[in-house]
Order: sequence, then C-alpha cells, then structure tokens
Amino acid sequence: MGNNKSMKSIRCKAAVIRGAGEPLQIEEVEVAIPSFGEVRIKIICSSLCHSDITFSRLKDFPGVYPRILGHEAFGVVESVGEGVDEFKVGDSVVPVFLAQCRDCVDCRESQSNLCSKFKFGPEPGMPRDGTTRFTCSDGSPIHHTIFVSSFVEYTVVDAVHLVKVDSRVPPQIACLLSCGVSTGISAAWKVAGVGPGSGVAIFGLGAVGLAVAEGARLRGATKIIGVDLNPAKFETGKKFGLTDFINPNEIGGRPVHEVIKEMTGGSGADYCFECIGLASLMSEAFKSSRQGWGKTVILGVEMHGSPLAIDARELLYGKSIIGSVFGGTKPKEDIPILAKKYLDKELNLEDFITHEVNFQDINKAFDLLLQGKSLRCTIWMDNKKGL
Amino acid sequence: MGNNKSMKSIRCKAAVIRGAGEPLQIEEVEVAIPSFGEVRIKIICSSLCHSDITFSRLKDFPGVYPRILGHEAFGVVESVGEGVDEFKVGDSVVPVFLAQCRDCVDCRESQSNLCSKFKFGPEPGMPRDGTTRFTCSDGSPIHHTIFVSSFVEYTVVDAVHLVKVDSRVPPQIACLLSCGVSTGISAAWKVAGVGPGSGVAIFGLGAVGLAVAEGARLRGATKIIGVDLNPAKFETGKKFGLTDFINPNEIGGRPVHEVIKEMTGGSGADYCFECIGLASLMSEAFKSSRQGWGKTVILGVEMHGSPLAIDARELLYGKSIIGSVFGGTKPKEDIPILAKKYLDKELNLEDFITHEVNFQDINKAFDLLLQGKSLRCTIWMDNKKGL
Repeated sequence: MGNNKSMKSIRCKAAVIRGAGEPLQIEEVEVAIPSFGEVRIKIICSSLCHSDITFSRLKDFPGVYPRILGHEAFGVVESVGEGVDEFKVGDSVVPVFLAQCRDCVDCRESQSNLCSKFKFGPEPGMPRDGTTRFTCSDGSPIHHTIFVSSFVEYTVVDAVHLVKVDSRVPPQIACLLSCGVSTGISAAWKVAGVGPGSGVAIFGLGAVGLAVAEGARLRGATKIIGVDLNPAKFETGKKFGLTDFINPNEIGGRPVHEVIKEMTGGSGADYCFECIGLASLMSEAFKSSRQGWGKTVILGVEMHGSPLAIDARELLYGKSIIGSVFGGTKPKEDIPILAKKYLDKELNLEDFITHEVNFQDINKAFDLLLQGKSLRCTIWMDNKKGL
Repeated sequence: MGNNKSMKSIRCKAAVIRGAGEPLQIEEVEVAIPSFGEVRIKIICSSLCHSDITFSRLKDFPGVYPRILGHEAFGVVESVGEGVDEFKVGDSVVPVFLAQCRDCVDCRESQSNLCSKFKFGPEPGMPRDGTTRFTCSDGSPIHHTIFVSSFVEYTVVDAVHLVKVDSRVPPQIACLLSCGVSTGISAAWKVAGVGPGSGVAIFGLGAVGLAVAEGARLRGATKIIGVDLNPAKFETGKKFGLTDFINPNEIGGRPVHEVIKEMTGGSGADYCFECIGLASLMSEAFKSSRQGWGKTVILGVEMHGSPLAIDARELLYGKSIIGSVFGGTKPKEDIPILAKKYLDKELNLEDFITHEVNFQDINKAFDLLLQGKSLRCTIWMDNKKGL
C-alpha cells in the first residue's frame, strides 16, 4: 500500500507535443504522486507504435495539446498510491492502454477484453477522475494519451492498466508486449484460433501484421501469405513464418483475392487479417476468405471512417468477420503468457526491434516508422542505446 | 442396390408452375427411374417455405419454367438407383436442398456444411448430370428446384440430398426439419452457440426466426426479443420462448437497436439474428449486439442484392458477423439429432404447423404464407388433411 504523505512529485524530462504534426520537444515536467488506485513508474524504454503517429497528427478532439504520447513501454514501479496491493516498488511492469479490472462482467468473461468498468476511450486524462498528473514548468497541465503516456522518465498509470512481467524478459522485449506485437499474436491465437495446416492471409506487414504471422507460425499454419506494397517486407516476413508474398502493384491489375484463391488451391484462406485500417482492404480480405468457415479478422482502425461494405450473400456461405481491440488480449492474463513463451524460446520477438534511439533523438523514431524503415524502434530513457 | 432393369417410370400428379408469378397447376407428369446415386421417393407431405414463393416469382435465371417447386418434404423410398447403399425401399426420408457427400474436405470438417463436391446452386437439374427426371404429358422436360422438387407424388433425389429419419416422427413434423425450422434451431445452437442466461434479439418472426427462439429457449437464453411488424407474432412467439417484442412501427420513430439496448440493461443483445434478408435490418441487428462478444448471425438472403454496410470501428469492439446457409445444419448428422429431441419432447415443433391443405389446394398454402397467416402449412399428397 502507498503512503501519500511521504511521496513527492518528481521533476524529470518528457517529450512533449505542442501541436498537431509538430515534432516532440524534450522539456522538464512535474509528475504528480499517484492517486488512489494508481502507480508511478520509472520508464526504462518505450517503442513507437503507429497509433502514436496518428495521435500526433490529430487536429480535432481527441487531439489535445500539449500532450505526452507513447503507450508501448516497460518500466519499474517507483511508488504506489493508496488502494493498490497488486504492485510494489521495484516490480517490472508493462503499462497497457486497455484496462482490466478483473471484476466487471466483461473481465470475468473469457470472450471479452473490453473492461466495462474502466472503458477504453480517447479521453486525455486518468481513468478514475479524468485529470492529469503532468504539469509544465509554468504550472499548466499536460495531457495524457490513452491512459499510458510513456515518453517521459516517470509516468503515472492506473493499476488496472498495468501488468507485472517476469524480470528476466529484457526491457526492450517486454516493451513490445504492451501493444502491437501482442495484438497480432493474440489475434491469431484467440480471435481467429488459427490451427495446424491452415492457410492465412495478412493484409499489411507492419509489426501487427508480422506478429499475426508469428502467431500463425507457432500454431502450425502452413501457408502464410503477406500482402504489402513494400517488397522488402517479404524478406522481413520470412523471419516470422511468411511463406508467400503479394505486392498488389505487381499482379497485373488483378484483384488480390483472386491471387490468394489461386495460392490456396482455389478455395481462399482460412483466416484473413486486415492490419492497416482501410475499408477497401477489409472487403478484399473478406473476399479472400474461404467459403464454409473463412474468418476475416479486422485489426486496423478504419482511417477515413468509411463503412465496411460486404456482399451479404457471400456472407451466407459460412463466412464471418470479427473485429477486436488489442487482438483480444486480456492484458493481465495474456501478456505473462507471451512473456513465458518468449523465455521458453518459442516466440521470436527480437526481430521486431529493428532500431534503437536515445530519448533525446525520439523524433528519429517517428521518421523511421513513417519511412517504412523500422518495425519497432526502442526509445531508451537512460541513453542506453548500444550498451 | 437398385436394379434399373426392373424399374419403370411413374406417371403421377405434380403441381407445375408454368410462368413467373402464375398459380401452380395440377398436371400429370412422368417421373423417370433414379439414375446412379439417386433415389426415387413417394412424397407423403410437403410444407411451404418462403423460398418457394421467391422461386415462383423469378422472371430471369434461375427462374425457369415449367418447374416443380417444393423443398420441405417427407417421403418414403420407392426405389433406389445403382450405387446407393445408404437407403432401401420403405425408408422414411427427408430430402434436403443442401448436399452432404460425407467425403469432401468440407463434409469432413465440423465447421462447414457446404459440401464442396456437390455444391449448392440454383441450377434446375439433378446434381450429377444437370438433367431432369420429370417430363410433361407432351414429352417436354420439367425443371427441378434446388435438387428436391417435392410438389409431386414421386420425385427423384440424389442420395447426397437425402436424410433417413426415425419413422416414429410424424410425417408433417419430419417435413419441417428439411429446411426452415432446422435452419433456425441450428443457427442458435451451432452458428451462434447461444448459452444459458444470454440475451437474444431476432429480426423477423417467420418460421426461421421462431425456430431461432425455440433453439435459444432450449439453450437457456433468458431474454428472447422478437422484432416484427406483425403484432400477432408476439403471442405466437411466446410458444417458442419469446419474452419480449418490438414492433418497429410502435416505438415512436426510435431506432430498434436503442430499444434493444434498453431491454438488455444498456449493453445490447449477446446474439442477434437477421431472418428476413434486408441489408438495413442486418445493420440494425449488428448495432443491437453487445460490445465485447456480440454476435450477429445472418440467415436471410438479401432480397435486393444490397451490400451490408457496417461501421468498421464498431466491429473493433469485439463484435462479429457470421452468415450461414441452413443455419450450419449438416443434414445427415443434425436432422436425426433434431428428430430425437422432438421424440424426447424437448423441442416444440407442433406449433410451427398452423395450417394444412390437400394437394389440389396447394395454391391456398401460398396465399396463407403471403398473407402472414401461416407459419407452416402442411400439403398432404394423399388428401390426408384432417384425418
């Protein structure tokens, strides 16, 4: 249990974004003590997820400034607020944008990972009271991002958003489990239920898509087809089990689903995953799925708000479409399982980390991801790069 | 095994449709001997399914004339063709529009009910050679309907389209199992997997929708909401477990999904079923389903060919949409299970039969269904009505 009286706010460095599309600036901020149910953690490293880029460009709500971005991270508990008995100082932890109270009807139900007590939303404050724990040097507040905000030396996170991880997992690896990589692996395992000998098609080979491949590989899928406009992704993908590759620009104008059907003996893939967020690709994924049991899993957040239009009659042939946030991962239960599979040398997580930068160079991580050069770039808070 | 040499064609009565939208006419036809893999059956009774009405109105392909409609039926094997060892003369059987060869990859896989060897399609002939077994008195051919054609005293059906049923099940009850009622019950059990204590919303309370209710009732659903424009359906539905009713015309212009959310404590239904075939209703069903695990099951064949448009972002909240033909029923395995549940007095099937007519009055069955007066009307071939 925490003891608020002995705790003090911490002055430390943060990478703050002050306007839509602007680069981050390293500033000194004040991080308040954790309130009831909250935990303050020292961030060891973050990695950059594409959603951070999306948030950095938002002009209208939920785009609010100044703000501290970052939601894929690993840290160590520095102090705990009242009412927290799940964590103690020194624990290795991974913060997660999705809450798990373990008590509501959704948390108690294995099918759902959407805590109905602490709902996921874009509001820029702490989950219990909506306020912020960050202040600028002039005393004005700085907003949080999806309940994490890890681009700062210390952050405050609600205990429902925090997961303990085995301290034997290296920080930069544990960090991956807090968003994109867990999303892809869980989607393959839990949402789709990929089985041995199956055929899988993955639209979009960023970290999420490649994590789907890695999850499918571990489940024994024998045909793992990747679809991406970047031809370099085939070689990268092979490290995660990719067996085939389609560059939509190099199939002579034919629709992708036709090529996928050809590659799967005429039937279509058993499981299709959309990892970009384009309604047109979702529809193409659906068309690529097999009659009888073909499942299309939507992981991308539709970036233009376009509706997904599908042929209702094609659906009748035993096809299904399912969406999920975080690939169905229930944070406190599933992240430790993934960590164990890493320690047991079953999961390839190292190959997701293609770059690393020190904290002051954080804007380089944005450039690398935008240019399609990196999968995940580790951002070290203590200038550990290369150590 | 059949012995073609001793078999002869049969002259008997059929209800023939000679043009789109025309009434059926009782005519004498000649029914050929069963070819390899086929079975000739004496039809005891049929019941009228809404798809027969749809077929009776088709102006373009697959609307072909003259044709014998009817695909919900019960009969007794009269003779068997070469290569058939699953059936013998005198067997009680139910013909089914969907084949099951028991040998292809789909038939061997529990998830699929779409035989990939004998594919479902609208072609108006026999499955193996596309030809017809029916001839008019002037020698010209009469077309089949979806591999059954039961509005005739004797019909020929491929053995892959035939299911043996316990002879203790009354003909008019067994008859129901060959299409609509099995569709609804199986959809609740197999496609949705309705569980105890769950909330269900059913759009459209024809026989299929009410069979969904009956299936959900047996699985212990505690909230079964029916949506229909015909207010009389609430009383009818109560016989099949309906607990609540929404008439979209009587909710003051509010959207149906809002009312369903209210009725389910704000969350939405665990399982939603669309049993009409309107894209707008499918979309409404999807909106009525619960975040976290809400499943929308599409059973209706979209009647205008409109695409189903859904909010891709809403899908992300753990929702899914799945479609199925015949509610996922695998005919040769599942129909005998349903028959047993009827004999064990678990399933209420009697209440689906609201009317009966003799064969020569078959057009009355069409009127009753079109006027929304009947759920199922038994059509007796041997003037057994009322006996």
